Amino acid sequence: MINKRLRIAFQGERGAYSEMAIILKFPESTAIPLKSFHDVFETVINDLNDLAVVPIENSIEGSVNETYDLLLQDQIYISGEIFQRINHCLIVNRDYKKIINVYSHPQALGQCRNYIESKKLEPIPMYDTAGAVKFIKENKMIRSAAIASRRAAEIHEMEILEEGIEDKKNNFTRFFVLSKQPLTKPLGKDRTSIIFSLEHKPGSLYNILKQFSQQNINLTKIESRPTKETPWEYYFYVDFDGHYNDEKVMLTLNRIKIQTKFFKLLGSYPKGIF
Amino acid sequence: MINKRLRIAFQGERGAYSEMAIILKFPESTAIPLKSFHDVFETVINDLNDLAVVPIENSIEGSVNETYDLLLQDQIYISGEIFQRINHCLIVNRDYKKIINVYSHPQALGQCRNYIESKKLEPIPMYDTAGAVKFIKENKMIRSAAIASRRAAEIHEMEILEEGIEDKKNNFTRFFVLSKQPLTKPLGKDRTSIIFSLEHKPGSLYNILKQFSQQNINLTKIESRPTKETPWEYYFYVDFDGHYNDEKVMLTLNRIKIQTKFFKLLGSYPKGIF
Repeated sequence: MINKRLRIAFQGERGAYSEMAIILKFPESTAIPLKSFHDVFETVINDLNDLAVVPIENSIEGSVNETYDLLLQDQIYISGEIFQRINHCLIVNRDYKKIINVYSHPQALGQCRNYIESKKLEPIPMYDTAGAVKFIKENKMIRSAAIASRRAAEIHEMEILEEGIEDKKNNFTRFFVLSKQPLTKPLGKDRTSIIFSLEHKPGSLYNILKQFSQQNINLTKIESRPTKETPWEYYFYVDFDGHYNDEKVMLTLNRIKIQTKFFKLLGSYPKGIF
Repeated sequence: MINKRLRIAFQGERGAYSEMAIILKFPESTAIPLKSFHDVFETVINDLNDLAVVPIENSIEGSVNETYDLLLQDQIYISGEIFQRINHCLIVNRDYKKIINVYSHPQALGQCRNYIESKKLEPIPMYDTAGAVKFIKENKMIRSAAIASRRAAEIHEMEILEEGIEDKKNNFTRFFVLSKQPLTKPLGKDRTSIIFSLEHKPGSLYNILKQFSQQNINLTKIESRPTKETPWEYYFYVDFDGHYNDEKVMLTLNRIKIQTKFFKLLGSYPKGIF
């Protein structure tokens, strides 16, 4: 009998927060590091890996735009949600001298802005957090630090100078589990995500929200992203409580569909534990 | 008689797109480069410079989060809007060899993603576009290019290898003119911007949009940003047609104010020409 472990792709190097989210939610799986978000989505679409885990928003820095844009593609559905407490570490080589520069992902640098300014460090944006640790290690940079997870420091056998350097302690990242098929059965406390675009006229967004309000459906997030085709026209991404097979959600979505220029159901999934 | 020129701050190095927006809108002014958005806002609040020009959104890459967050501060109002067509150039040192890396601001790298991938270049994010040109010049990097404006190449006397390398030609950036006081008089075709936060309950956003719809006021943008205090609670930024001294807008805003937890009028300003 073949013991087939679930293969779950993520963007970044080993030790990335996305990898930690995978370990948290799917301890029995194999996490597959890929270079770009584009590659992560492709691997799901092309059946090369079973699932993927991608960050969608952080409680301090906000939405991850690239993830939002890639969700528009066909054959990409959301089948789960994970919340993770972010605990940033200042990581250095063991033979470090006075630190001048600090490398990390722009979101992580943003989350530690006050700390970086108070220490008069020069922030240098990089590709990802764990990648920054690898970079300062491989280049033997003794005057530079990286901001990343404890796990990234441990994997690369680096020293943690300080832990919990994020400006706000209520720092959480929300991740989506991506799959090629949507989940069809309600699993208890579910959330649903949709994307739509509208004709540009007064009241068009209001008319959509009215449908939710009439059925007493609670919206948990609304995000807008440029369509990229027509300047200042937007896709709206809406998350709300309930499953698309619930009667009142089904009714609401049917009413919304006929009022939108574009509509995509991203899926329903059990709400993450927060 | 002292000839006092208007002083207008921007974030970045000389040759930045923000500086070009200043030259376009205020040809008689003096543009003041500052390192961070934080510094740009501070200089307006502290009366050190008269105005500032900051990017708020791009038609491809979307909103500039840092600008949105800084608009929450007191003594910051929007008194104008500028639209600028973005035309990115691939800029190199005159003695360049085969190019491997390309440096620029993450938004500019994002706007040229297809071009960068087709040329198999390695994108390296930097602080700003014109700063990337200065960086590859000062470090005499002959295997690296920068993505920035024609003006940035000219200021630093660098070579333009290719012009118009952005993936989509409908690439525009919208800038805000910031001032310490709001404009009080309608100037013709005006737009108004507000920020608010809401109690987390079904229909709360719908009830706000209803006020606009009832007065037939056209919303042109809705953006959400985390409050940073309570995870998954948001500030909403709404732009709409009209001036806050118009009767129907005044009525609408008065109705909205009593339904919000937080409310800030960012100002009314003549719509930019697009």
